Amino acid sequence: MSENQTLLPDVASALESFTHLEQKIMHYQQLLGLVQWDLQSGGTPRKGQASRAEAIGALTADTFELFVSEEMGACLDVLTKPENNQQLDAESRARVRVAKKEYDKTKNIPSSMNREFSVLTAKAHHIWEEARSKNQFSLYEESLTKIVDFQRQFAEYYGYEGHPYNALLNNYEPGLNVEKLDLLFSDLRQKTIQLLDRIQASPHKPQKEIFEQKINIEQQKEFNKFILPKLNFDLDAGRLDESVHPFAIGLSTGDVRMTTRYLEEDVRSAIFSTMHECGHGLYEQGVHADYNGTFIQGGASMGIHESQSRFLENIVGRSLEFWTYFYEDLKAHFPQHFDQVSLEEFTRAINLSEPSLIRVEADELTYNLHIMIRYEIEKGLIGGQYEVKDLPQIWNEKMQDYLGITPSTDSEGVLQDVHWSFGGFGYFPSYCLGNLYAAQIAHTIKQQIPDFDQVIANGEFDKIRGWLLENIHQYGKLYTPGDLIVKVTGEELNAKYLVEYLEQKYTEVYKL
Amino acid sequence: MSENQTLLPDVASALESFTHLEQKIMHYQQLLGLVQWDLQSGGTPRKGQASRAEAIGALTADTFELFVSEEMGACLDVLTKPENNQQLDAESRARVRVAKKEYDKTKNIPSSMNREFSVLTAKAHHIWEEARSKNQFSLYEESLTKIVDFQRQFAEYYGYEGHPYNALLNNYEPGLNVEKLDLLFSDLRQKTIQLLDRIQASPHKPQKEIFEQKINIEQQKEFNKFILPKLNFDLDAGRLDESVHPFAIGLSTGDVRMTTRYLEEDVRSAIFSTMHECGHGLYEQGVHADYNGTFIQGGASMGIHESQSRFLENIVGRSLEFWTYFYEDLKAHFPQHFDQVSLEEFTRAINLSEPSLIRVEADELTYNLHIMIRYEIEKGLIGGQYEVKDLPQIWNEKMQDYLGITPSTDSEGVLQDVHWSFGGFGYFPSYCLGNLYAAQIAHTIKQQIPDFDQVIANGEFDKIRGWLLENIHQYGKLYTPGDLIVKVTGEELNAKYLVEYLEQKYTEVYKL
Repeated sequence: MSENQTLLPDVASALESFTHLEQKIMHYQQLLGLVQWDLQSGGTPRKGQASRAEAIGALTADTFELFVSEEMGACLDVLTKPENNQQLDAESRARVRVAKKEYDKTKNIPSSMNREFSVLTAKAHHIWEEARSKNQFSLYEESLTKIVDFQRQFAEYYGYEGHPYNALLNNYEPGLNVEKLDLLFSDLRQKTIQLLDRIQASPHKPQKEIFEQKINIEQQKEFNKFILPKLNFDLDAGRLDESVHPFAIGLSTGDVRMTTRYLEEDVRSAIFSTMHECGHGLYEQGVHADYNGTFIQGGASMGIHESQSRFLENIVGRSLEFWTYFYEDLKAHFPQHFDQVSLEEFTRAINLSEPSLIRVEADELTYNLHIMIRYEIEKGLIGGQYEVKDLPQIWNEKMQDYLGITPSTDSEGVLQDVHWSFGGFGYFPSYCLGNLYAAQIAHTIKQQIPDFDQVIANGEFDKIRGWLLENIHQYGKLYTPGDLIVKVTGEELNAKYLVEYLEQKYTEVYKL
Repeated sequence: MSENQTLLPDVASALESFTHLEQKIMHYQQLLGLVQWDLQSGGTPRKGQASRAEAIGALTADTFELFVSEEMGACLDVLTKPENNQQLDAESRARVRVAKKEYDKTKNIPSSMNREFSVLTAKAHHIWEEARSKNQFSLYEESLTKIVDFQRQFAEYYGYEGHPYNALLNNYEPGLNVEKLDLLFSDLRQKTIQLLDRIQASPHKPQKEIFEQKINIEQQKEFNKFILPKLNFDLDAGRLDESVHPFAIGLSTGDVRMTTRYLEEDVRSAIFSTMHECGHGLYEQGVHADYNGTFIQGGASMGIHESQSRFLENIVGRSLEFWTYFYEDLKAHFPQHFDQVSLEEFTRAINLSEPSLIRVEADELTYNLHIMIRYEIEKGLIGGQYEVKDLPQIWNEKMQDYLGITPSTDSEGVLQDVHWSFGGFGYFPSYCLGNLYAAQIAHTIKQQIPDFDQVIANGEFDKIRGWLLENIHQYGKLYTPGDLIVKVTGEELNAKYLVEYLEQKYTEVYKL
């Protein structure tokens, strides 16, 4: 980080107090992250969960109180004054920007409300797991109703223009709103459905049967352990575990924890979950070491974060070039399972597209439709058009409308996602934004690394990683997502590159 | 818990404030416990450890500040006044007693000192691991010297009568001092060395070769998983992992985490480590649910805690009756490995006694000598007779003096234990106290459950567990260790029962 050598005394003093608060908040958040990892990776014994929820509630409340403290308010007053703010170096300005957004958003929320919400969601996570495993939405209804009520109240506290859901969207993607998203999504929906129609009419189907075989989970773990370091994930600064719903969390730049999900009957699950989370993990590990423990540690936004996971999982990980490099290794790890399958057949099969029930197992094309369904439901719940008790029915109707299929059970439908259980309303659109950002960024990389395809086929992933590190990862939250995408690609986010990418890919896979 | 219904208003108000502080402190300690578990079970990636140490330091300092806060002082002033104190129910009185001891001990310690010490020890743990793995004491010398300096300063802050080491002993075993310990140890040392001489002269040696075979670690894990529930450890309220140095930690009564150590070349390591930690674990799980999250959660003292682990590991776990019940299961889990070994030979072999280098692998008899060596070194370091740089030499001389053998490397000598790296001076004697308490308690159990041996041979461990729960576990820290041992056994702690037990056992094993 550069130095703030020329600061006026009161600015220097405010920055010092601000830094002290920031360190404490980031320490707390690091510890809370560890507790969340423990809970979500299945490490917390069942009978310890209630007590853990109380402890999480206590530390979350402390963190919140520091964030909205008078001291923080006083620091931000000084540091956001234009004549003072312009004295700061870029990093300090960004740290203040991040804090100010959080402060403004939350300063009116009573700390008891945050505490209650933490306790509620820590418990709701396990209720959701139970409801899902018992296939009984009614078990979850009461918790989810409370969570939605909290979200509506939070939206009012945060403040918004237009639709109340904008307040929640803005949490994950600063500057995003319902109007922009409706436009991006309607464009993408139309092209996706056209492409899906052409795919379904194509006589050239990939051979999905090649994955209809059981593969030993220990062997799958070995393969995952084999690819992670090749993709430049640093296992001295992170780890890979298992959970029902894979996730990645950066506790610090030196402790990035990912989980994956092994299915004996579908080897794709672990491979692509691992690559997906590895994309997140590389981002967290790649943030400038000086930003560790500051407010600009971590990714620029959820959408940008998701672009990194989608880029690695889909644009790199489902390419012919990637498997040109890895296919022999895969065959060696799973002897006999793919002996009769050519590289081309394998690559076409991992790019199969067809309507399916489970978002996390959905293909690259239909995935975006899954997101649009969740987006509409969240918008309807927060806007008051929908009620929680009706969700199973609404879900199934929308699945029919967008994807032409209906889940036969709620576990395969409305109960499939963890997100609502932790109150992550406004989060789902990030996944689709991730695809949009990823395609736009990939377009730029291919211009700047003209032999991109060959680099991947050679397994020179450090070159790709180097580019991402230099252009995106190192910056953490230094730039807003809007500024970053323009800095990196020269234009604002739009659907053009994703549509082009999908059309090109599926034209090849399905010989359209 | 009973109710405090008749409290005067200012006492009720002090108790309410006290309870509020207590909850917060216990929440923090629960979270710090989780972080420690993560570190010590090897879960924290190497590059994340420095940042974690800072976060631990921050929350430890917060906990400390709450403990010595003006508010805590004011509450304790009210609640310890005799006329107020006697209004409280037994549980509240005990909670106040525990807090008052901690408050008096630490109120003069500057919070910066605690914070520095936390950071130092979090880092020292990994330095110790490195020094041990590289067999290089010099790597550890600087950290350990700083830790000893801190301990000496802490002793001054805590206050003591007589030897400064008394201040540290008192942390783990309230009421203990160098004079009492010297007496207990000199008695025990003399009888142990006499017994060891007779054992070494005996022609009837157990067949230790039966353990000189490699046993697959996955099979060992299965056996450990098999015995834990039989011993009444509740896996819905705890878990078993692995670490270099096995430990148990109770984050709450519903989340008790233990680790064990698997050695392919010695199956005894995991079996007896697991039983040992299970003894601790049962105690933590067995504390009255109402005490969870209060200052009387957890064991009465380190010595009493250790009595529970020693009781299960040695008095129960190395008995002929225990293996009468489990031996066929053991043989089934490790097919062929023990086919030629009779139950009696097996039981004699697990009770082999001979001088050895590593404390955690030492037998029940010589173990106490290992403790005496550490006790003398600690006393000398804190008293200023010894310097850290001389420890490798001092260690080796004492090993020769007590056990008649000398380590050839420091990894097998002075570097073998984790304890000093976390500043656990005064802790080691607890292990020997544990043996003393355990033998004295066992003497009482055998009077109250006259068919004790048959109960174990029948695998009716719930009967033994029930007795421990009723007489010891449920009480947590309600009683001081001195009061508890008198309540349970009718007399103060003395060496008689351990000496008797050891003489009886080894007379049988070695046909003396």
